[in-house]
Amino acid sequence: MSDLYRFGISLDKDLIEAFDRHIKTQGYQSRSEALRDLIREELLRKTREEGGTVAGAIVMTYDHHKRELVNRLLDIQHDFHDLIISTQHVHLDHGNCLEVIAVKGSAPKIEKLATNLKVLVGVKHLNLSVTATD
Amino acid sequence: MSDLYRFGISLDKDLIEAFDRHIKTQGYQSRSEALRDLIREELLRKTREEGGTVAGAIVMTYDHHKRELVNRLLDIQHDFHDLIISTQHVHLDHGNCLEVIAVKGSAPKIEKLATNLKVLVGVKHLNLSVTATD
Amino acid sequence: MSDLYRFGISLDKDLIEAFDRHIKTQGYQSRSEALRDLIREELLRKTREEGGTVAGAIVMTYDHHKRELVNRLLDIQHDFHDLIISTQHVHLDHGNCLEVIAVKGSAPKIEKLATNLKVLVGVKHLNLSVTATD
Amino acid sequence: MSDLYRFGISLDKDLIEAFDRHIKTQGYQSRSEALRDLIREELLRKTREEGGTVAGAIVMTYDHHKRELVNRLLDIQHDFHDLIISTQHVHLDHGNCLEVIAVKGSAPKIEKLATNLKVLVGVKHLNLSVTATD
Repeated sequence: MSDLYRFGISLDKDLIEAFDRHIKTQGYQSRSEALRDLIREELLRKTREEGGTVAGAIVMTYDHHKRELVNRLLDIQHDFHDLIISTQHVHLDHGNCLEVIAVKGSAPKIEKLATNLKVLVGVKHLNLSVTATD
Repeated sequence: MSDLYRFGISLDKDLIEAFDRHIKTQGYQSRSEALRDLIREELLRKTREEGGTVAGAIVMTYDHHKRELVNRLLDIQHDFHDLIISTQHVHLDHGNCLEVIAVKGSAPKIEKLATNLKVLVGVKHLNLSVTATD
Repeated sequence: MSDLYRFGISLDKDLIEAFDRHIKTQGYQSRSEALRDLIREELLRKTREEGGTVAGAIVMTYDHHKRELVNRLLDIQHDFHDLIISTQHVHLDHGNCLEVIAVKGSAPKIEKLATNLKVLVGVKHLNLSVTATD
Repeated sequence: MSDLYRFGISLDKDLIEAFDRHIKTQGYQSRSEALRDLIREELLRKTREEGGTVAGAIVMTYDHHKRELVNRLLDIQHDFHDLIISTQHVHLDHGNCLEVIAVKGSAPKIEKLATNLKVLVGVKHLNLSVTATD
């Protein structure tokens, strides 16, 4: 966290009125908060492109009946243990597991880990969701 | 176009400094211009979700040797003639055409037109790119 | 999990050769596995659009020094307790927390929960990452 | 265009049934056509990441009343004339223009052209939509 900095901007009246209506629907309490989120998302896109440090989670579902899958998942995660903070496991139904792996590290390495897990037989869906770490 | 409206916002000092560096790299001349673009993109997302009016272009490549394709493309475009402003055609190479169809109208109808074209045998790629019309 | 079903498809030779090179780089062991993933992603897009049931995680970072933020986060999560399976919390640094909330339920409700959390003062980034539950 | 190549794949029965329903709704006439499109989109993502050759269009709206904008747009387009095939211009309403610029060339150069146009004062929306050129 850092000091607040105040400055003025100029926008078309029509545009700011439409924006005010939009952010009120979403529940924002001020223009500053809404603009802050747009700026952070824009900077996150840049950080990922440039291979900077991010934190986030790999979210995947898999079929734990697949032969060898659970062992392969553990092997790969240990190969990247320096990126993985901890994991959370949910038994979705008889056959399917939801696993959420909290990660922190360089964006390209985390993307490599995600790809290595995604291609395994039995992994049904995998998403990587990251946020910048400032 | 409407009158300009000036107001103040407060952001963390670190965040605005990172944003200033980012928009300077891109070539923006002021924070107001860069924030204006972020706001317009956010509002466009909402307009599309809510089925509002948009303008833009369907961009596609196709293999004009495919039997019947050119006639099917024309038939479908005439079915949606009220959405189509004009088209631009480029002979990319011996077999491939690039066609850019300028469109204006309700977002769901334009998306329906795009899907109808996309599924035709011989259409290789199709993207819909729209902007809000204010 | 269900029985396997085998069928034939026809593709341009150039296209399947490019695809073979691509999936080999990623680490897939067969075309079937790679196509399965493309199909699942396509169906997930549809499930989200149509408001079906999904499972996944809300991934967010926030500044725990912000007054009242931690209480607000808990209040909102309890309002949506039927969607939340469990949460995982990481102390990223002195001021920042990473919180990963495993969720399961209807896509629109989960998106509403994500928006309610995202707009809070002090929440720096928030992503929703979901997978279909079949 | 190249020769057709036929091969077999194996998928879970539930998955292929859901896929069949989905592509029937969209209007595809065969699984091969639908899978072809998923493969092409996947390969296009890779081509863009790796900076390969693409064709497509820059779609933008702008306010032609803005001082100097039209001249700046022409200057920049001439700087990148080797990428631009032709342009299509639509007078949307009293103040707004829709311009669609057909382009072909290396993905990073086309992205640079798009950014240079996007940051100009008076350019309201700009999207780049590309397809692979095989």
